[in-house]
Amino acid sequence: MPLDLNSDLGEGFGPWKMGDDAAMLEIVTSANIACGFHAGDPSIMRRTCELAVAKGVSIGAHVGYRDLAGFGRREITMDPAELCDEVLYQIGSLDAFAKAAGDRVRYVKPHGALYHSASRDSALAAAVVAAMVDHDPELALLGPAGSELEQAAEAAKVRFVGEGFADRAYTPQGTLAKRGLPGAVLDTDSAVAQAVSIAVSGTARTVDDSGDVAVRAASLCVHGDTPAAVEMARRIRTSLDEAGVPVEAFC
Amino acid sequence: MPLDLNSDLGEGFGPWKMGDDAAMLEIVTSANIACGFHAGDPSIMRRTCELAVAKGVSIGAHVGYRDLAGFGRREITMDPAELCDEVLYQIGSLDAFAKAAGDRVRYVKPHGALYHSASRDSALAAAVVAAMVDHDPELALLGPAGSELEQAAEAAKVRFVGEGFADRAYTPQGTLAKRGLPGAVLDTDSAVAQAVSIAVSGTARTVDDSGDVAVRAASLCVHGDTPAAVEMARRIRTSLDEAGVPVEAFC
Amino acid sequence: MPLDLNSDLGEGFGPWKMGDDAAMLEIVTSANIACGFHAGDPSIMRRTCELAVAKGVSIGAHVGYRDLAGFGRREITMDPAELCDEVLYQIGSLDAFAKAAGDRVRYVKPHGALYHSASRDSALAAAVVAAMVDHDPELALLGPAGSELEQAAEAAKVRFVGEGFADRAYTPQGTLAKRGLPGAVLDTDSAVAQAVSIAVSGTARTVDDSGDVAVRAASLCVHGDTPAAVEMARRIRTSLDEAGVPVEAFC
Amino acid sequence: MPLDLNSDLGEGFGPWKMGDDAAMLEIVTSANIACGFHAGDPSIMRRTCELAVAKGVSIGAHVGYRDLAGFGRREITMDPAELCDEVLYQIGSLDAFAKAAGDRVRYVKPHGALYHSASRDSALAAAVVAAMVDHDPELALLGPAGSELEQAAEAAKVRFVGEGFADRAYTPQGTLAKRGLPGAVLDTDSAVAQAVSIAVSGTARTVDDSGDVAVRAASLCVHGDTPAAVEMARRIRTSLDEAGVPVEAFC
Repeated sequence: MPLDLNSDLGEGFGPWKMGDDAAMLEIVTSANIACGFHAGDPSIMRRTCELAVAKGVSIGAHVGYRDLAGFGRREITMDPAELCDEVLYQIGSLDAFAKAAGDRVRYVKPHGALYHSASRDSALAAAVVAAMVDHDPELALLGPAGSELEQAAEAAKVRFVGEGFADRAYTPQGTLAKRGLPGAVLDTDSAVAQAVSIAVSGTARTVDDSGDVAVRAASLCVHGDTPAAVEMARRIRTSLDEAGVPVEAFC
Repeated sequence: MPLDLNSDLGEGFGPWKMGDDAAMLEIVTSANIACGFHAGDPSIMRRTCELAVAKGVSIGAHVGYRDLAGFGRREITMDPAELCDEVLYQIGSLDAFAKAAGDRVRYVKPHGALYHSASRDSALAAAVVAAMVDHDPELALLGPAGSELEQAAEAAKVRFVGEGFADRAYTPQGTLAKRGLPGAVLDTDSAVAQAVSIAVSGTARTVDDSGDVAVRAASLCVHGDTPAAVEMARRIRTSLDEAGVPVEAFC
Repeated sequence: MPLDLNSDLGEGFGPWKMGDDAAMLEIVTSANIACGFHAGDPSIMRRTCELAVAKGVSIGAHVGYRDLAGFGRREITMDPAELCDEVLYQIGSLDAFAKAAGDRVRYVKPHGALYHSASRDSALAAAVVAAMVDHDPELALLGPAGSELEQAAEAAKVRFVGEGFADRAYTPQGTLAKRGLPGAVLDTDSAVAQAVSIAVSGTARTVDDSGDVAVRAASLCVHGDTPAAVEMARRIRTSLDEAGVPVEAFC
Repeated sequence: MPLDLNSDLGEGFGPWKMGDDAAMLEIVTSANIACGFHAGDPSIMRRTCELAVAKGVSIGAHVGYRDLAGFGRREITMDPAELCDEVLYQIGSLDAFAKAAGDRVRYVKPHGALYHSASRDSALAAAVVAAMVDHDPELALLGPAGSELEQAAEAAKVRFVGEGFADRAYTPQGTLAKRGLPGAVLDTDSAVAQAVSIAVSGTARTVDDSGDVAVRAASLCVHGDTPAAVEMARRIRTSLDEAGVPVEAFC
């Protein structure tokens, strides 16, 4: 089974930079590109789309709450209809740059606080999916398997792609162990091993080391915000290649 | 010759309202819809697009400087490449709502300070047109005849539509008389007469009353920000209908 | 016992207007002035402060979440330390205009979603109060009696002023009846009567008409966003004057 | 004669960082702190003020155009009265954090495009100075000697402090050589030498090496946005100390 590697890119704003997009675009197969609400500005969006197309990386709209100051990491209580409009606005703006670069937006991934709130709240999940259908029913939705996002996608006949994490430990229930807990964040060696395990056997060792748990993920999220993160992503990619896992975009 | 009537719509933001969009959409044939940079938010954009489509009014992207506080009326010195990106972002976002409503963005009109700066500055004009071509080479550009915007459109083989004003007096040179000057702003009766004159004979009486001057305009701009403005627009529409001028969208 | 009348003022932004500030400043004794985060811009803040000083109305900082698009009515989950900084920023900016107009910020009232979240959450309430103490320990806090805001003010030895509502019905528990419920929003006659009742006897008739409930309020909030609201405020003021209630600012 | 070293600090925003403020606060005597319009947010402002006070560094309000996306480097044509309000808002907000940290705003320096526009345009310069006088007539103004800013300060009896640059070459007329020209930007050794020369003899070698030109500067601007810039600033400070120049804040 092939595996996709996705990463959050284009997260600078104006004079401010974040992460090493050029390095990550050599590693990943899908680029979650910020659309100006939590990060990203028009010129960064154009440049990131052009780079992604040049590298053959799929373009996804990384949609978030309109909150530059909080980087989209703060939940904003919002009417679902209004959220739907905010998501559609972001997809449309990124699609213009994707098309100018010779491709199009192929999938949507909610960012930060919206990733969590829409995974948990069926009305918010439905709002995200409704915006996707408004734009293009062929768009795929990238998010956590088993979440309200998956439910909403299924209800709307939108393709859903489950996302896993290489560097975060899983509980016996298959959810992510909370960041604060011991062992919740994996070191590079463990993350590389977990990536291969998810790809090859569809399982991960549980955070309490009590056994293996199924992880339903056709895409793994990797980070590029520090040199160490880029190095981890590169080793994950290399190990997957060596393990004979086809690393390719899901769409 | 048919004449188009255009108006600036969707210019509220969040809790704030501006103008009577519903009334204007009964009068005009083209709607310049704000895209969130100088006015407009995603929910207003959706609602305005839906209303425009319901009334058979053409949707244009009213693109402006990113300056809500100044309503896009303050010039921001900007690199042309950056301006191009800002314009493309706005077109893309509005197009998503236009398509969700069953149509598409058909033309672009620069707003406020950008209308003036891009009419005067060839590099800025070329940047606006480049964004249009990036999105869709079939888009038309609405602006002042004889301006750098017209030049840039011609150079890129983009359709240009000259815009006139019913309620502003023209100089013998065919430019608008400056707002401060006596007679520069017409009362309702004079504006109605000037609209019919532009439509029927392609001329307007000059501000100094010395004669008639050619006004090359396939579209007239009318306003809806006050009840008096709406009333003027309605009388202009009625008078054009009575004069046998076909009032229809230019695209 | 004297009673204060307060109102939310200075809630325009850029080209957009809201409410009739000049009319309200003839009626109220305390002005909750927006500080640019949920509404208000520097020029509106200056003008509103100048008008308030000219009319002898006390200036309060109406502090809110940084959310123009949502008018501060959407809760933003936020670290209390960050909220404290956001509140201090707003107080400081308004104080500059209050001082330029010849007075100073005398009190703080949280706006919209922050009013509710900080009334309920002790950490957020403490953050608001900490910002006040940072700026000036003599500032008073205006909010709902019995709330976490009152607790936090007491703990920090900050003066607290309970706020009541003329046009909203109270439950037998002394809380506001939810907006959706029948009878929750009073008509003008009932609101005028309730204002006088709160001022004279410290009680209001309960929403279920089962009896009277104590309402601990040294200030009543009145609105100015519609002509009808202004008229209601004017009648409340007149009725209080006629009932011999001294209407004066609490600070 | 003592010399002040100033630097632009607190220029991050939300999740984004810029420069090494902690390192620079060991070197400089005056901190130009961004106030949230071109950079800076409330939490960064508090932290930077606290650090400045802890290091005994003077706090100045680095006021700019409201333009995060353009980092205040794009001129925005603006009514002088509106500019005055925007500047006062920024001074007030920073002063709240300066006072919470145990000091106060002591001076104002315009940032980026405003530095240039207000140096050139007497109405804009007067607007900046008017905001300063509104807040505190004892504030000093830091800017280029001989500019409209100096004129406006003198006219309002506001103390003016001329600013020089260590790493930029001067023309025989005493103005900065344009960035594009050969020799316009000095290497570290030359910048260190020029700093000492300005401090000791009040002159700099001209860009065309034709002689020395008087540079009237009681403060030198140094940068901290790259490790190389920090190193240059550190060497300038060391060389001034070794040359016996008292490096101290001008207020």
